[in-house]
Amino acid sequence: MITVLSGGVGAARFLQGLVQIVPQTDVTIVSNTGDDLEMFGLHVSPDIDIVIYHLAGVVNEDPGWGIAGDTFHTLDAFARFGHDTWFSLGDRDLATSIHRTHLLRQGRTLSEATAEIAHAFGLDVTILPMTDDPLRTRVETPDGLIDFQEYLVKRRAADPFRGIKLAGIEDAKPAPAVIDAITTAEGVVIAPSNPIVSIGPILALPGVRQALRQTKARVVAVSPIVGGDVIKGPAAKMMKGLRMEVSAWQIGWLYEDFLDCLVIDVADAADRARIEALGLDVVVTDTIMKGMEEKAALARCVLDAIRKKKP
Amino acid sequence: MITVLSGGVGAARFLQGLVQIVPQTDVTIVSNTGDDLEMFGLHVSPDIDIVIYHLAGVVNEDPGWGIAGDTFHTLDAFARFGHDTWFSLGDRDLATSIHRTHLLRQGRTLSEATAEIAHAFGLDVTILPMTDDPLRTRVETPDGLIDFQEYLVKRRAADPFRGIKLAGIEDAKPAPAVIDAITTAEGVVIAPSNPIVSIGPILALPGVRQALRQTKARVVAVSPIVGGDVIKGPAAKMMKGLRMEVSAWQIGWLYEDFLDCLVIDVADAADRARIEALGLDVVVTDTIMKGMEEKAALARCVLDAIRKKKP
Repeated sequence: MITVLSGGVGAARFLQGLVQIVPQTDVTIVSNTGDDLEMFGLHVSPDIDIVIYHLAGVVNEDPGWGIAGDTFHTLDAFARFGHDTWFSLGDRDLATSIHRTHLLRQGRTLSEATAEIAHAFGLDVTILPMTDDPLRTRVETPDGLIDFQEYLVKRRAADPFRGIKLAGIEDAKPAPAVIDAITTAEGVVIAPSNPIVSIGPILALPGVRQALRQTKARVVAVSPIVGGDVIKGPAAKMMKGLRMEVSAWQIGWLYEDFLDCLVIDVADAADRARIEALGLDVVVTDTIMKGMEEKAALARCVLDAIRKKKP
Repeated sequence: MITVLSGGVGAARFLQGLVQIVPQTDVTIVSNTGDDLEMFGLHVSPDIDIVIYHLAGVVNEDPGWGIAGDTFHTLDAFARFGHDTWFSLGDRDLATSIHRTHLLRQGRTLSEATAEIAHAFGLDVTILPMTDDPLRTRVETPDGLIDFQEYLVKRRAADPFRGIKLAGIEDAKPAPAVIDAITTAEGVVIAPSNPIVSIGPILALPGVRQALRQTKARVVAVSPIVGGDVIKGPAAKMMKGLRMEVSAWQIGWLYEDFLDCLVIDVADAADRARIEALGLDVVVTDTIMKGMEEKAALARCVLDAIRKKKP
């Protein structure tokens, strides 16, 4: 069993590769839900849906979210009611959120709703929301706290980034199967996701970081950094905002207390010695996932790192 | 002020004519909500929406419900989740139901939600749901009670009709402004709607029938019967199922206790004497509303009947 801590697009692309070489039934995904939002009364789970749509083969590849060929007629019609429509949710995509909301209102947990939706999309992987509790990532800016999706989508991540607050973290627990998925796995993978807002909220849940430290499984992270920058998204800006170095080494340093091995891009090979100095194994490979072949190759490399005994 | 008791398509087409000759601000519509349904957790009010879409000029003229040019991508996507998708709700149409549900979940009444939606569609008429309470029309058939929309849409009104049960009628009150709208109106119109399942549930609410009897306003009904049959819908079948005559006279007889005047089609002119024998005024005119001109002419005829003093 391989357990993957996952954000959105980067993680989903990695997972597409992983399920080429590992049976879906052997994969458990712990998905960030700090990005979740309520829109028109509907519960939207962007990271969970991004993963589902990628693995089901229905994703809109560019930009990496939503359903291929989707239309936006319902969203357009919302404008009449004075709703903000900056969060782009297609008509087919909306069906997922309506169904999820329906299940939640019937008293099902987000874990149960997620399992049912993944099954409806024909998936055999296990997708766990990191928590069933209403935890929401908010971004600290000079103008105050801004909800994550509003910061990212509506304001295009233009505000200076000063950190995040996880609203609800005091009362949030990991979803029921999360800790077990970490402690009983053959290997744990930290996907190439934003370490601050995608992986960070998962690690902030009580017991998760400790489970990662104590698990007998090898814990392998794939660095989202390529050549000292990120391919996509606001991770570099956020790391700078926190006065961090934007580098593969920084990724290793963030995860150092529980990580066994960091997979870094060839463009960051110069960081190897500094990362090894953190006490981590380092694997240098091509981490840019252009097509399915590259995705599978990266997954194979990560699996090798999981199965390699420490020297 | 003209108050109109209203079902779906027939009433909506009549109302299109009425607002040609009366300012929208002078029109109050009491809409049947017995046909409402919950679909995927969303509150759908078919008769209210039919009226709004007609008056806003966005209705899909044939079949007379939904929004012109709408697509059905969300509905198609629901099939994946095992939802019944026999109730055809377009993508733009869905926005209305999502918004309504959102308002209701925030604690607004159906009256408040309806007013807001009508306003968003640019209407100045007052649309009142007959009740803010969860009253649902169910159809008695040899197979037992069937929810109204399931009977009408899914089963295409094919089951023998034995009557209706109004689930929730014991606890239902008319919405706050309904009784006043009847007692303070200059005239009350019973729209050319199904007397059993569209007007019937409104009349069944406590106090409504009494208010119609006591109002000083003239109460004028437009018969939905043309030549001893109905143009559309299951009214004839339902009247037969209740061992009623399918005739303009029967409409007069159903409303006799509160009605002042019945407007009947020229094709039913032979019924005039029998209807007058019920103590009602009769106006014979062309009630088939082919285009906007015919709709306005019918409305003018009804207005004349309201304003005419009894001889």
